[in-house]
Amino acid sequence: MKRLKVGICQIKVVEDKEKNIENAEKMIREAVRNGSQLIILPEMFNCPYENKYFPLFAENYPGKTTNALSNLAKTLGVYIIGGSIPEKDKDIIYNTSYIFDKKGNMIGKHRKVHLFDVDVEGGIKFKESDSLGYGEKVTVVDTEYCKIGVAICYDMRFPELMRLMALEGAEIIVVPAAFNMTTGPAHWDILLRARALDNQVYFIAASPSRNMEAAYHAYGHSSIVNPWGEIISKADENECIIYGEIDFEKIKKVRKELPLLKHRRTDLYELYKK
Amino acid sequence: MKRLKVGICQIKVVEDKEKNIENAEKMIREAVRNGSQLIILPEMFNCPYENKYFPLFAENYPGKTTNALSNLAKTLGVYIIGGSIPEKDKDIIYNTSYIFDKKGNMIGKHRKVHLFDVDVEGGIKFKESDSLGYGEKVTVVDTEYCKIGVAICYDMRFPELMRLMALEGAEIIVVPAAFNMTTGPAHWDILLRARALDNQVYFIAASPSRNMEAAYHAYGHSSIVNPWGEIISKADENECIIYGEIDFEKIKKVRKELPLLKHRRTDLYELYKK
Repeated sequence: MKRLKVGICQIKVVEDKEKNIENAEKMIREAVRNGSQLIILPEMFNCPYENKYFPLFAENYPGKTTNALSNLAKTLGVYIIGGSIPEKDKDIIYNTSYIFDKKGNMIGKHRKVHLFDVDVEGGIKFKESDSLGYGEKVTVVDTEYCKIGVAICYDMRFPELMRLMALEGAEIIVVPAAFNMTTGPAHWDILLRARALDNQVYFIAASPSRNMEAAYHAYGHSSIVNPWGEIISKADENECIIYGEIDFEKIKKVRKELPLLKHRRTDLYELYKK
Repeated sequence: MKRLKVGICQIKVVEDKEKNIENAEKMIREAVRNGSQLIILPEMFNCPYENKYFPLFAENYPGKTTNALSNLAKTLGVYIIGGSIPEKDKDIIYNTSYIFDKKGNMIGKHRKVHLFDVDVEGGIKFKESDSLGYGEKVTVVDTEYCKIGVAICYDMRFPELMRLMALEGAEIIVVPAAFNMTTGPAHWDILLRARALDNQVYFIAASPSRNMEAAYHAYGHSSIVNPWGEIISKADENECIIYGEIDFEKIKKVRKELPLLKHRRTDLYELYKK
């Protein structure tokens, strides 16, 4: 039976890009020693999640961070979904996830499509669009295991994007994400479980650990949810690696028993990518 | 501040249509005595949830059940979303929800659009399409309070339908539903909360109570969820009425603080009704 072992590195992000890359490398090596074939890093794993840092930590592609990930993927012979980093392209900075295959080839990248501009009374206030540009594409990459959809954090709030990835054949959706102490406790579990359940995919969300010295307090709780909506692996708020196995038979079974993707009434409504 | 008090009658459905109607009437009167302005009944509240009963209990419109609901709405001066009943139209039976305003006028009806054809190993097996016809419309009714979207049970599994109702202006989505002992514990809460959260609406699901003498064991747990995804009222599995208030300022507040409906990237994807 085809299976895929996944490791999520819930990295503690600090104000030093070199240290963040070194730390990611150390954790990736550990995840691989423990059998992971696909490694996933969190959103903005090389840069504190604050608008003022994005321009300072941004790099063009290829750059120091992406070279390190590509080399690791090749050396260790694993897939890496490199969380996200601030990517500089001309004068615009994007929140971008780079994806590498076992040979170190960059097989896809996702620029965050929905920017996090929110202002909750007594809670989180953030305006990504002050510093970041908008991604313009739905991202589904092909691997030897299956198709994998990749989106970033706030993107997962939008059922349309999640559904489009499933309709393009994704059996796993990976979302590097840094929810906070307002939206995390309120919405993290519901969203992860509903996206997995609705689209009958494994849904994997990778958060940085909670760094109380940073201005932005990430929720942590990186998780893997199966297509029946069950959380099969979950971190707390601390730096750690969590593991889980993708069971492709489970995806088939759920899609056969509760055929949601087949039962869509495409004669009554249509969702399409422009 | 504009508010609306809602009462959900979690009726115990038995094998006697007259008794079910009488019971509904009794519970509706009690809900109104306790201040409810909008009363919601469960899916198939006048008929046991089994394919063999649907043709036996079905009625044309107007019929005994709908006349009783219309009269009650008028007499009591309240809105009634009449769960659902087996509706006969020519030779086809539909799973249909009738909606009445304060004057007893039928202001809308929803025929279940997604039929429940599932077969979960070791769990629920049901094939509605053996006995029922498919609805062909998205249903949003206009009331003096706000627009209300109405769907039935399995319909809520489809984020496209839920989103279309929100895009048509629904601030409340009401779903008479009879989940079972397989899908209820696994998915009921997640679905209700995610639909409310994603679409920033009050989401109200009305189930029959669990009747262990019936062949189909409903999950119960009728609930009201606010637009932040919080359950504000919830039944257990027994026959009861639960109450809750719709706070229209809360809808505005959540939609302003976390502007999901505005942040949809309609330049990248589109969802439309055919």
